[in-house]
Amino acid sequence: MPTSAKSRRDFLMKGAAAALTLPAVSALAACTDAKAGTPDAPPPSKPAAPPAAPVLSVRERADAMDAMHEKGIKAFPAKTAGKGNQIMAPRMEAGVKVFDLTCSEIDWEYAPGSHAKAWAYNEQVPGPQIRVREGDRVRIKLTNKLEQSTAIHFHGLELPNDQDGVPFITQPPIKPGETYTYEFTVPNAGSHMYHSHHNATTQVSKGLLGAFIVEPKDRSREPKVDVDHVMVLNDGPHGYTLNGKGFPATEPLVAKLGQTVRIRFMNEGMMIHPMHLHGMHMTVIAKDGWDQPMPWKCDTLNIAPGERWDVIVKATNPGTWAFHCHILGHAESEHGMFGMVTALIVEKGRPTA
Amino acid sequence: MPTSAKSRRDFLMKGAAAALTLPAVSALAACTDAKAGTPDAPPPSKPAAPPAAPVLSVRERADAMDAMHEKGIKAFPAKTAGKGNQIMAPRMEAGVKVFDLTCSEIDWEYAPGSHAKAWAYNEQVPGPQIRVREGDRVRIKLTNKLEQSTAIHFHGLELPNDQDGVPFITQPPIKPGETYTYEFTVPNAGSHMYHSHHNATTQVSKGLLGAFIVEPKDRSREPKVDVDHVMVLNDGPHGYTLNGKGFPATEPLVAKLGQTVRIRFMNEGMMIHPMHLHGMHMTVIAKDGWDQPMPWKCDTLNIAPGERWDVIVKATNPGTWAFHCHILGHAESEHGMFGMVTALIVEKGRPTA
Amino acid sequence: MPTSAKSRRDFLMKGAAAALTLPAVSALAACTDAKAGTPDAPPPSKPAAPPAAPVLSVRERADAMDAMHEKGIKAFPAKTAGKGNQIMAPRMEAGVKVFDLTCSEIDWEYAPGSHAKAWAYNEQVPGPQIRVREGDRVRIKLTNKLEQSTAIHFHGLELPNDQDGVPFITQPPIKPGETYTYEFTVPNAGSHMYHSHHNATTQVSKGLLGAFIVEPKDRSREPKVDVDHVMVLNDGPHGYTLNGKGFPATEPLVAKLGQTVRIRFMNEGMMIHPMHLHGMHMTVIAKDGWDQPMPWKCDTLNIAPGERWDVIVKATNPGTWAFHCHILGHAESEHGMFGMVTALIVEKGRPTA
Repeated sequence: MPTSAKSRRDFLMKGAAAALTLPAVSALAACTDAKAGTPDAPPPSKPAAPPAAPVLSVRERADAMDAMHEKGIKAFPAKTAGKGNQIMAPRMEAGVKVFDLTCSEIDWEYAPGSHAKAWAYNEQVPGPQIRVREGDRVRIKLTNKLEQSTAIHFHGLELPNDQDGVPFITQPPIKPGETYTYEFTVPNAGSHMYHSHHNATTQVSKGLLGAFIVEPKDRSREPKVDVDHVMVLNDGPHGYTLNGKGFPATEPLVAKLGQTVRIRFMNEGMMIHPMHLHGMHMTVIAKDGWDQPMPWKCDTLNIAPGERWDVIVKATNPGTWAFHCHILGHAESEHGMFGMVTALIVEKGRPTA
Repeated sequence: MPTSAKSRRDFLMKGAAAALTLPAVSALAACTDAKAGTPDAPPPSKPAAPPAAPVLSVRERADAMDAMHEKGIKAFPAKTAGKGNQIMAPRMEAGVKVFDLTCSEIDWEYAPGSHAKAWAYNEQVPGPQIRVREGDRVRIKLTNKLEQSTAIHFHGLELPNDQDGVPFITQPPIKPGETYTYEFTVPNAGSHMYHSHHNATTQVSKGLLGAFIVEPKDRSREPKVDVDHVMVLNDGPHGYTLNGKGFPATEPLVAKLGQTVRIRFMNEGMMIHPMHLHGMHMTVIAKDGWDQPMPWKCDTLNIAPGERWDVIVKATNPGTWAFHCHILGHAESEHGMFGMVTALIVEKGRPTA
Repeated sequence: MPTSAKSRRDFLMKGAAAALTLPAVSALAACTDAKAGTPDAPPPSKPAAPPAAPVLSVRERADAMDAMHEKGIKAFPAKTAGKGNQIMAPRMEAGVKVFDLTCSEIDWEYAPGSHAKAWAYNEQVPGPQIRVREGDRVRIKLTNKLEQSTAIHFHGLELPNDQDGVPFITQPPIKPGETYTYEFTVPNAGSHMYHSHHNATTQVSKGLLGAFIVEPKDRSREPKVDVDHVMVLNDGPHGYTLNGKGFPATEPLVAKLGQTVRIRFMNEGMMIHPMHLHGMHMTVIAKDGWDQPMPWKCDTLNIAPGERWDVIVKATNPGTWAFHCHILGHAESEHGMFGMVTALIVEKGRPTA
């Protein structure tokens, strides 16, 4: 089981390689030659000439590359241990919705067979999805089982200052072993987030983040949708992820022909991710939980760190549609698709409503 | 003729140098000293002391730097071999507009005297510009002369799923030597793109991309313009390019005073490029081929990978106006302007209409 | 006093470290062990065993990290030598507003105790804030005391071509020791900038930049605000800065409860900076000096190089609110907050108007 530091190094090197180098196809041939030496290999004990590497034809090399691509796609959606972003039911205490969170270090399988340490709320990356309504009274109890202090910032919520979660400005840090309680009446509706605001470059990258969805008091303000999908983007020690997983372990969005899908994009990483949907356009309806005054259409939406964008997709085009970050180095290498790739599957099952 | 891998390395090192280092002016003095040794030079055969390097005054060093800047600007627009983005006339076959494309490896002069391998459609980078109308029936026949498989995704077009161009999801990969035919009725209007969707980080970076412009059936929906300019942005083995070329080999936009210019920005690279026009503002009218509900004005437009933005410029201000990416490291080094720089030339020739 | 090249290297290494590595907490213990060897240290002259490093408990290590965080926050707003972006009063010459600028190399304390060379207008980074009105006649006299040529581009102003400030296109470069005069009638209103357009990757990064604010002739076009704050973003040899300073040397925004704050964001760097305000939302009213046709709300605004965005904040929520770039590596490391962090302080002093 690799340490998270090592996994991060591996990811960065692989990520850098994917983004920055264009290895010649000949590298593929080398990959298939199990006898080839590597810089780290011990010198062979005998000076005898190694057996000649097989010479592959152009077609064989293309087939070898394509087989890797096919394998990834056929594995989708791949099973991995652990699932983040699960909607959390609160306990009720005298009319208050109580959410018990514990942060701790866990092993996280971010892609099939790829593991790294994560710092997680309730052993989920992203943490459990919190869904409440404007005006609700909520209490969030955080127990810190990490070996460093932490705090939660409710990103986008216009809270009283002492609930804002910034150590030494609005509260003391929550020390290892301590439990701390936030309590507030939920102010503004929209697609918000919660995440660490202490040593946050490290803590958020490693997984201390989650969606905080606030439904409006006036339900007529909400668009009617059949599918409501939260998509949290991240880049860090788990690679390029959608809801904590990289392709082919990402979760597809599934809708029936004619249905309406709402997607709530949230970027918790440190890079932009312009998400591109194939086959249908997206209508942008909200930014950071605030209605856009005039919805507008696109097929590629640039999402910067800290931003949330809500879009509506009418599932009018049947089929399985690629849906990925269009920084291509976040989505595909010569070994096939990885990272920020999923699909919108529009099923023909039912006629258009 | 350098290999593309080497060129890419060179580019990346130079690019990194341009972006990340601020060499002292004294480096310029070294550049002008032809006797100075370099790491690659053989050791001198005699131990005799070399003649002393001339000591340059502040003014001489400034003049030396300025001369490099002037040389680049005076060379603009510089001739280079090859021109991309040329509008392609289809052949007609029983009412169908047929576009024959071949992808192959070519040598590409991306800036005066700078060559690298490119993977190109019809030996152009960007590939030939395809211009059709909503409702047209089109057939695109791709012959693959590369040494790896490929496929074309029509980015932005809302096609039937089996024409979407994603290997193993919507079609098999097109193997080396094979020809594959796409055929569809053109759906939504707008500024779209076509590019490889197989090993795309490599294939698109190297040049497998082009503009796919769809004019609306209802011509009254189009703004009346005198100049319609497509500007494809890319960053990869050919450096920072506009329509496949870096400054001073970029193509200027030319308009007469009072004319209206439409610019269709398209980002096929892996970085954002905020394009800044001097002297006049841009009115943003469409995103990804969809009309913006309320046009808005700017002079610097941030274009993310996969995005297309259409803008209108009223050529009201005579002169030659710099037009460049405002990530300054993509546009200028101490050696002068390079990469993502062109100009809008507003000619006084005719009175304002 | 470090050279700017060295400072830049240091910054880049630290910046890279902050962005790319997630050192284990154990590194903190090492930091506190003054006896620990380093790769660069000479071998100890005696083979005697070093004294054992103290073993810190989890709590002690957390406290050590928290103490660094607290120290930075308690120091805010920290005093440093030099202040940029000071509003400059013009001299009047026969109805013309004259601004005398001199660019020169100075020492710049960009954060408490952190110094680097800067190239500055009137020894300020950003240069003095120029505030004029549409229709004003202005004259800007630049004396170049640097050791390389320069020129000023008035970014966003729609000037006659010969005042656009691009060497070899609209004027000759201004050589070391020379004085050059720009003169024009101020055209379009809005939040604009002035900066070098010669060897600009270096010159702008090092500080040759400033705000150029144009108030509209028709004052009824302006929103009524109590506080008008210009925030210039930069990334370069002075680290990640707001108005030339990194946290805790950044300047807080201060408003009384119920007041209205206008913030004019300007990005003079080479990276995006999505600025996030805690506790209250921002209403976006202008882009590059042009009114947005329909203002829209957000709490995180992505600002790309060369862009200016004007927003309005109603100071409705009392307290001290973190306000920072949400690329977390530009704002916080395990050593605490740094770089692009400031605060909006909403004082309860007066009742809501």
